[in-house]
Amino acid sequence: MADDFLPIEPLSREAFAPFGDVIDPDPASMRLINGGTTRRFDALARVEAYGEDAEVVISIFRGEPRRFPYLVTMMERHPLGSQSFSPLSGRPFLVVVSEDRDGIPAVPRVFLASGGQGVNYRSNVWHHPLMTLGAVSDFLVVDRLGPGNNLEEYFFDTPYLIGEPTP
Amino acid sequence: MADDFLPIEPLSREAFAPFGDVIDPDPASMRLINGGTTRRFDALARVEAYGEDAEVVISIFRGEPRRFPYLVTMMERHPLGSQSFSPLSGRPFLVVVSEDRDGIPAVPRVFLASGGQGVNYRSNVWHHPLMTLGAVSDFLVVDRLGPGNNLEEYFFDTPYLIGEPTP
Repeated sequence: MADDFLPIEPLSREAFAPFGDVIDPDPASMRLINGGTTRRFDALARVEAYGEDAEVVISIFRGEPRRFPYLVTMMERHPLGSQSFSPLSGRPFLVVVSEDRDGIPAVPRVFLASGGQGVNYRSNVWHHPLMTLGAVSDFLVVDRLGPGNNLEEYFFDTPYLIGEPTP
Repeated sequence: MADDFLPIEPLSREAFAPFGDVIDPDPASMRLINGGTTRRFDALARVEAYGEDAEVVISIFRGEPRRFPYLVTMMERHPLGSQSFSPLSGRPFLVVVSEDRDGIPAVPRVFLASGGQGVNYRSNVWHHPLMTLGAVSDFLVVDRLGPGNNLEEYFFDTPYLIGEPTP
């Protein structure tokens, strides 16, 4: 086991760009619609769904809060589609992703998302399953449904450690 | 103008079935994932996006609250795709839809969604633009982006009235 805690970075569009989209009200994407009564922050994330008979579905994930220090023993990825998570609770959560190194996840990066930020993992981006903080929390999830194997998992020989996030 | 207020109905899966999906944690859809740490309420809504080069995108709509009594002067529909709205604020909102009668919206039906309920309008379902209650509120929206005319509007000769909802 690694002795050091992985650094926890604030979630920003720029820092997260190699992995996917940040879903929050980006002023650059804003246009007025519905006779000026609604601001549309447009196309913050693009959904991917590959393969014959692939569908896009909307689900709700209800995550148990994680305990810290947390041991990152594995990562997963979805080759056939993107997957987005947007908090419905207003509570922050952790986003753990890795760049790919010859088919294996590199050292994970840990982002602290605010309760007003969602993320969309692009297809084939290594990520850790949902890491809820503090209390049981619901997330809106947009991902792919359909035939074919859309899950790949990798288990680390040497797990990584995440310390308690300080908001 | 009609003198009577339209009735306001509670939003339920059964009542809303002719128009689309209710997006809330339906126990019938639940399965455990992520080693038992997450409950997945699966495929609560199916996203439609028709036509060449159509994409599915995730946006945020920030709606100004409506004032009551509210005059429903028009409805719209999207022939090429579904459109979902899920509140990020936890506040209730109004869902106004119509069945189609020979290409024209019938008398609108008004549903009061709780702050824990979203909706997904199926393609070609007449609906009123976002009706936020009480305060400026953000909604996660999943809909179609792409070429082609995906908007049809209808203006009523005789508008309908909605009274102040009592939660």
